[in-house]
Amino acid sequence: MTYCLAVKVNKGLVFASDSRTNAGVDYVTTYSKMHIYHWPDNRTYVLLCSGNLATTQAVVNILQEDLENPKARFNLLKARNLYEVAHYIGKVNQHEQQLHSEGIKSSKTNIEASFIFGGQIAGGIPDIYMIYPQGNYISASTETPFLQIGENKYGKPILDRIINHNTTLEDSARCAIVSLDSTIRSNISVGPPLELAIYEADSLAEPRHMKLTMQSKLYKSLRKHWNEGLRREFDRLPRFDWETKK
Amino acid sequence: MTYCLAVKVNKGLVFASDSRTNAGVDYVTTYSKMHIYHWPDNRTYVLLCSGNLATTQAVVNILQEDLENPKARFNLLKARNLYEVAHYIGKVNQHEQQLHSEGIKSSKTNIEASFIFGGQIAGGIPDIYMIYPQGNYISASTETPFLQIGENKYGKPILDRIINHNTTLEDSARCAIVSLDSTIRSNISVGPPLELAIYEADSLAEPRHMKLTMQSKLYKSLRKHWNEGLRREFDRLPRFDWETKK
Repeated sequence: MTYCLAVKVNKGLVFASDSRTNAGVDYVTTYSKMHIYHWPDNRTYVLLCSGNLATTQAVVNILQEDLENPKARFNLLKARNLYEVAHYIGKVNQHEQQLHSEGIKSSKTNIEASFIFGGQIAGGIPDIYMIYPQGNYISASTETPFLQIGENKYGKPILDRIINHNTTLEDSARCAIVSLDSTIRSNISVGPPLELAIYEADSLAEPRHMKLTMQSKLYKSLRKHWNEGLRREFDRLPRFDWETKK
Repeated sequence: MTYCLAVKVNKGLVFASDSRTNAGVDYVTTYSKMHIYHWPDNRTYVLLCSGNLATTQAVVNILQEDLENPKARFNLLKARNLYEVAHYIGKVNQHEQQLHSEGIKSSKTNIEASFIFGGQIAGGIPDIYMIYPQGNYISASTETPFLQIGENKYGKPILDRIINHNTTLEDSARCAIVSLDSTIRSNISVGPPLELAIYEADSLAEPRHMKLTMQSKLYKSLRKHWNEGLRREFDRLPRFDWETKK
């Protein structure tokens, strides 16, 4: 499995992903699920992938081919707004799945894939989209400032508590790391390294990109502080009335 | 949906459940999912139910009928150990599902049900079992001291961090409330009141039973402290190196 999320706050966008892929429990590998596209002062995109690795790789390859093909009717650079890109990725995703639908019929393999896509195009506002395996898509909103794909349940409670549209970019990024870390601790199908991309609204700059391994000083320190902090707060919780005050 | 869990620690057992049931989003009701059976100095059982409400109610009714039927070949009181009870509940569950399998074929309704069962019989040790819809079952272990049924993912990270076999009964109960509360905040198919049963190992006494509504002083205080505590610890997390020290 996979766990990826994106957060849209007033100050910009945060994207985060794990790197574990598995085909059964006996074939576990590490792949980046984050793809960054940047044309200075023109547009910045981040794409996060979840689902069948053959499908997500094929989609990413087709996006790249279309970019390099001067005759392509549409590509990431020709889009006038983010909505068009979400639509385009949805179509490529559906096309890729249908290409292999015959071959897949006789097996139980699931070739579906989901994506989170976001960024900003000059003249537009920053936004994030979740693109479903069926090719349709939704964007975030002020009330729902984050989107998740893959193993999304373990890491949702902390997002629900912390994130709103006024959260800073750094706090959003920290919360994304905590959300990923909680998932990694509870589900072996999600694993490090984590990738993080932080995009400042209206900068049209390249997102700040970080890769956090288990050995990264920041990630180690954050894991330790959070675990100890939770334990400390847990020990401070109100007692039942029959307990002697500790 | 539902979320129920049970914890087995050295000092005894803790059981916790929510009370929301729904058949679609337009028929949401409240039912207790916790059933306590107690014969002083002889045996104490707690049963938690998840899945199709018709199936879980039927299973509970059959357990009761067998108890009241002097000719029943087996019942909760005739069991010599907990393992036999888990096997019996699994069989009743399967039987009940098969009774309605013809009627269900043409619909998309899922009539499966899962159970957590635990307690102690005089002369035996306290234990907990998870009984699958297929009728088979597993028990907890020193390394896996808790079992969950229903919407189990949201509330798993805090259990993974806090619970081990040395955890006190009260801390286990508090952790179960936090686990349920995190789930309630993130998933509307799980809702209050919460029920809690705390059984002290080797007491063969009736478990301490509590029902916590949103208005309960303890639950309100626990929710508030935990939420504020998480926020406080989150604000204390290490900064990225580009941030000015707050």
